[in-house]
Amino acid sequence: MPSEPNANNSDIQNFKICIVGLGLIGASLAKALRTNGFTGTINAWVRSESTLKAAVASNIADKVSTDPADVAADCDVVLLAVPMGVMRSQMETLAPIMGAHTIVTDAGSVKSSFVEDAQAVFGSMERIVPGHPIAGRESSGIDAAEAELFQSRMVLLTPTEETNPVAVQVVTEIWTLAGANVETIEHELHDNILAATSHLPHVLAFALVDNLAQSKHSSEIFKFAAGGFRDFTRIASGDPTMWRDICLTNTDAVLAAMDSFSENMAVLRKAVEAGESEAIDEIFNRAKKARDAHVHLW
Amino acid sequence: MPSEPNANNSDIQNFKICIVGLGLIGASLAKALRTNGFTGTINAWVRSESTLKAAVASNIADKVSTDPADVAADCDVVLLAVPMGVMRSQMETLAPIMGAHTIVTDAGSVKSSFVEDAQAVFGSMERIVPGHPIAGRESSGIDAAEAELFQSRMVLLTPTEETNPVAVQVVTEIWTLAGANVETIEHELHDNILAATSHLPHVLAFALVDNLAQSKHSSEIFKFAAGGFRDFTRIASGDPTMWRDICLTNTDAVLAAMDSFSENMAVLRKAVEAGESEAIDEIFNRAKKARDAHVHLW
Repeated sequence: MPSEPNANNSDIQNFKICIVGLGLIGASLAKALRTNGFTGTINAWVRSESTLKAAVASNIADKVSTDPADVAADCDVVLLAVPMGVMRSQMETLAPIMGAHTIVTDAGSVKSSFVEDAQAVFGSMERIVPGHPIAGRESSGIDAAEAELFQSRMVLLTPTEETNPVAVQVVTEIWTLAGANVETIEHELHDNILAATSHLPHVLAFALVDNLAQSKHSSEIFKFAAGGFRDFTRIASGDPTMWRDICLTNTDAVLAAMDSFSENMAVLRKAVEAGESEAIDEIFNRAKKARDAHVHLW
Repeated sequence: MPSEPNANNSDIQNFKICIVGLGLIGASLAKALRTNGFTGTINAWVRSESTLKAAVASNIADKVSTDPADVAADCDVVLLAVPMGVMRSQMETLAPIMGAHTIVTDAGSVKSSFVEDAQAVFGSMERIVPGHPIAGRESSGIDAAEAELFQSRMVLLTPTEETNPVAVQVVTEIWTLAGANVETIEHELHDNILAATSHLPHVLAFALVDNLAQSKHSSEIFKFAAGGFRDFTRIASGDPTMWRDICLTNTDAVLAAMDSFSENMAVLRKAVEAGESEAIDEIFNRAKKARDAHVHLW
């Protein structure tokens, strides 16, 4: 039954998994699976010779190659942990190499564009399980990888109606073994939520730091900034290319989030300008209350 | 010479200091001075009976009272650590009580309004040393006070041309004994810088969290937020009243900072909408570079 996911077996411990991309996420997943007792095969397809070298030196996978034919053929699962900007081209390269039974999942931050690309490349979504680990940090690359990165973090899967539940089960088991808590959510809702909680905050942080860097007082501004500023702008030290790609793939949701935020800022600006104490109070208090009520979740 | 600051002596160890307000800043200063070997007298004027009780119970000062006449008369230094909104009324109450020699300083976040208020209340700025410790946290009140709060933190003093250098020296010695690094800066520049590094980020964080709290997806948004969001919004758990007062006293600088930021956001929005990869790259990379270059300072 080559069109059935191998996952009917559901024992992922015998699986051959190919991780595409050994950046922070891909390399951390390889480490997490091995550390947590995964007994199957972990292959990895990488693009750069330097990552290949680092991967071999650290013995992070069973087989690592810059040639996908060496590592992706006949895999049970292929997991794409590559920037959004190259997601589609990597799928196109992989499609003729992978077995017909191979489950395809990913770790990209935007899910609607992944669904669209996968549909275009693979025709059927039956074996496609879009996924997104809500984990990360400002450092990137294989050297920043940690087996504990996904411990108690959330992984959101956004299967389509066409996706085989067994394939979802397999990907759930992989992330669960890596230490994560897996939840399933509709892909458009995912993109709207992530635009609000992650993409917009990054946009704000980048825009703010850039704005201050261009100020005539920038040297004093950065000198006299303090702990609050450090935390607020931490995400502006993230990978600019990755966040650019996210803006360019989740464009509609990011623009909507920016617009909604800007409207609220305009209300606040008016209140500040008019000295409307109560209106400012209302916004600030509502914000504090909402954050204090949810901070235990993070 | 009653019009000369006692500070000609400059040995602050014999001084009688009255701290007005035992919130996080005032109470931490009392603790820091005592912990670091201050041998003079620390009095405190508080407004609420509950703070009075807590202050007496923790033996935080030599004398604490809700009546300023009990604690502020004949002091060498009065340090106002009260919200911006009550700064002026407290000065008006203190003016007839204090000795003519008393040095007046404060810990408020906005300096132009303090200078204006002090000028109006005291006539002369000779003994007035506006100050601002760049320290704080989301928790507030006497129970959150820590002797280490100012350790290696910056305190900015903004004396006017009229301020007696000896008074500046005295206040510098007090904060230095509390563990801080003291710098002097022009008060308008202070307010512009703090609007950029502190007031604007708080406004953005409050506006963002409030915006998300009002979203129809707010429960999912807060559920699926992660570490980046937690850090980015930490300052939205600050004291709403304090931050409202700051907006209402540093209004011009806050509005200018909001407008400058909004212009940069508009540029970025346009680039995202148009899919202008290079323009987004430019903003994100400039931001990351600026932050990475300065983060060691904080």
